Amino acid sequence: MAMSAEKEHPVKAFGWAARDTTGHLSPFRFSRRATGENDVTFKVLYCGICHSDLHNVKNEWGITSYPVVPGHEIVGMVTDVGTKVTKFKVGDKVGVGCMVGSCRSCANCKEDLENYCPEMILTYGAKYYDGTTTHGGYSDIMVSDEHSVIKIPDNLPLDGSAPLLGAGITVYSPLKYYGLDKAGMHLGVVGLGGLGHMAVKFAKAMGLKVTVISTSPNKKKEAMDCLGADAFLVSRSTEEMGLAMGTMDGIIDTASAVHALLPVIGLLKVNGKLVMVGAPEKPPEPLAFPLLIGRKMVGESAIGGIKETQEMIDFAAEHNIVADIELIPMDYVNTAMERLSKADVKYRFVIDIVNSLKPF
Amino acid sequence: MAMSAEKEHPVKAFGWAARDTTGHLSPFRFSRRATGENDVTFKVLYCGICHSDLHNVKNEWGITSYPVVPGHEIVGMVTDVGTKVTKFKVGDKVGVGCMVGSCRSCANCKEDLENYCPEMILTYGAKYYDGTTTHGGYSDIMVSDEHSVIKIPDNLPLDGSAPLLGAGITVYSPLKYYGLDKAGMHLGVVGLGGLGHMAVKFAKAMGLKVTVISTSPNKKKEAMDCLGADAFLVSRSTEEMGLAMGTMDGIIDTASAVHALLPVIGLLKVNGKLVMVGAPEKPPEPLAFPLLIGRKMVGESAIGGIKETQEMIDFAAEHNIVADIELIPMDYVNTAMERLSKADVKYRFVIDIVNSLKPF
Repeated sequence: MAMSAEKEHPVKAFGWAARDTTGHLSPFRFSRRATGENDVTFKVLYCGICHSDLHNVKNEWGITSYPVVPGHEIVGMVTDVGTKVTKFKVGDKVGVGCMVGSCRSCANCKEDLENYCPEMILTYGAKYYDGTTTHGGYSDIMVSDEHSVIKIPDNLPLDGSAPLLGAGITVYSPLKYYGLDKAGMHLGVVGLGGLGHMAVKFAKAMGLKVTVISTSPNKKKEAMDCLGADAFLVSRSTEEMGLAMGTMDGIIDTASAVHALLPVIGLLKVNGKLVMVGAPEKPPEPLAFPLLIGRKMVGESAIGGIKETQEMIDFAAEHNIVADIELIPMDYVNTAMERLSKADVKYRFVIDIVNSLKPF
Repeated sequence: MAMSAEKEHPVKAFGWAARDTTGHLSPFRFSRRATGENDVTFKVLYCGICHSDLHNVKNEWGITSYPVVPGHEIVGMVTDVGTKVTKFKVGDKVGVGCMVGSCRSCANCKEDLENYCPEMILTYGAKYYDGTTTHGGYSDIMVSDEHSVIKIPDNLPLDGSAPLLGAGITVYSPLKYYGLDKAGMHLGVVGLGGLGHMAVKFAKAMGLKVTVISTSPNKKKEAMDCLGADAFLVSRSTEEMGLAMGTMDGIIDTASAVHALLPVIGLLKVNGKLVMVGAPEKPPEPLAFPLLIGRKMVGESAIGGIKETQEMIDFAAEHNIVADIELIPMDYVNTAMERLSKADVKYRFVIDIVNSLKPF
């Protein structure tokens, strides 16, 4: 019989976990492994709330095993390092994103694409090498192999940096991979939430012209005045969408709600690329290939590798990019989840772990 | 009232045309314009039969106006050139593919992508600048602006070269554009017809490993022994398909019949690319995005620009690549169309215009 979460490892830990499909989070005692020779142990300071946390705590993807401690946008301060750790020392500001392990030997791992490794280990709710279940950043301490740990540059505020490790890399990686990072290009960003607002910031820093496409006309002012978007299209306006047809080199589609794709593809120029990065609750509208005429392309992208995540953070530091966040105390998390399900957040909730996660 | 096809231009021409949706082709008198200052006039020697000719003569795409003289894989010998023509002289061996004009000023034209110009003029059944209808290569002579004319290198046999102008460029262009032209890559080719067999030849000349995926087990021997494919998968064999999962860098899908895409996408590695080049009679199976997980990509490609078509022909000449053809006389064309509709051809019909198109 497996040992209890509280006893299976030597180091006491606590956090908040969901126990069933209500998704309600409550205090939870568990344990972490002692610092292994390749491990970095760190005190969690902040943790972002990703939309996928919401899907997970409610088991909307059917893969959750309870109890689950969510959180994969984690930043903190190193408190201990293993004897073989070379990149980190006590006191360093670090982060962990969506994964804490991979096989390190497959073709994807060798190309720094651990995120596409078939044996990739998610930061929470996954089986670790030792057979125990991984637990995420809604908790006081983290232990991770140094390979999966990201250095946070000194000039970045830690709270706003947390979402870079999830939302940030999720939009940065496809901008690079699909070649949508050239100054002067015209990028569309569908959906202005956690992912979308990061896409706008990165693309603007890369020198692109950015048009936000949203169902909500009331997001226009903020998209343009605060985030620096160059244009805004109300997706329900056939007139606005019609005028913008054939004008975009690429589109990052972050919308997780099911939505029509034909009008979005129509915005692309010849050779244009539509990249889906949203994680929908249910399969989106099927796409028939005739929609792609004009050598258009539809692709997918899922987070990014460790090396590219570090590159993204360094780019963010250079351009002073962090997420726009609402910093919340731990005991607000259930309300935050409720608001997130209604897209009522600008643009990312970050849990103030260091100041509000109380031992019990 | 428009003038008759026979009288609208000064130069007498004849060919075979379809008059209605039976698609039956029969002798047809029409006319060609006199050689304009930028024009190249040439005697047609050979013309390939493309599957799209079959769709067109039967109006299966709903865009045919009758009578229609098909043919857009045309090779011949120059008989006259306009005063401003610089690239061609009388006696040159030349070809014309799927288009005879474009706007020459849009962004696509400026990037040598005339094939994606919104005003691209098809070689047959389209309205030319002067308001008359274009007629294709099932005919004795052609006149084309020199911009759309391709030089055929001396070492290529003319009959086998004709299909390069349609089938050849249709598969060559996506191999280049999607980066599936690197030696050592593993390419899948779905369907072994006119397009598919050209894809195998080009990919092998580029140094790729090529696997043919077909519904017909009896094509295996020829694919491997004659065309040089490295492997063969029977698409209906779940065992064979299962063993090949996740092994291909790219797939050129030439199948025009509706077919399941999930198993095809399953053959791709992470970052793999599926390119659809077949021209289906009806919309293919819709594709839901979850199938693309692993940063896979689905794209489309349609023929190629003039510059790239010349590049393709030169590559073909360098590697001694022509189509495997059945050379047929003009009066066999209706039987050939019937056989083509059953995929009964290895691998392209080419009409021996010079020796069999009889004036009447």
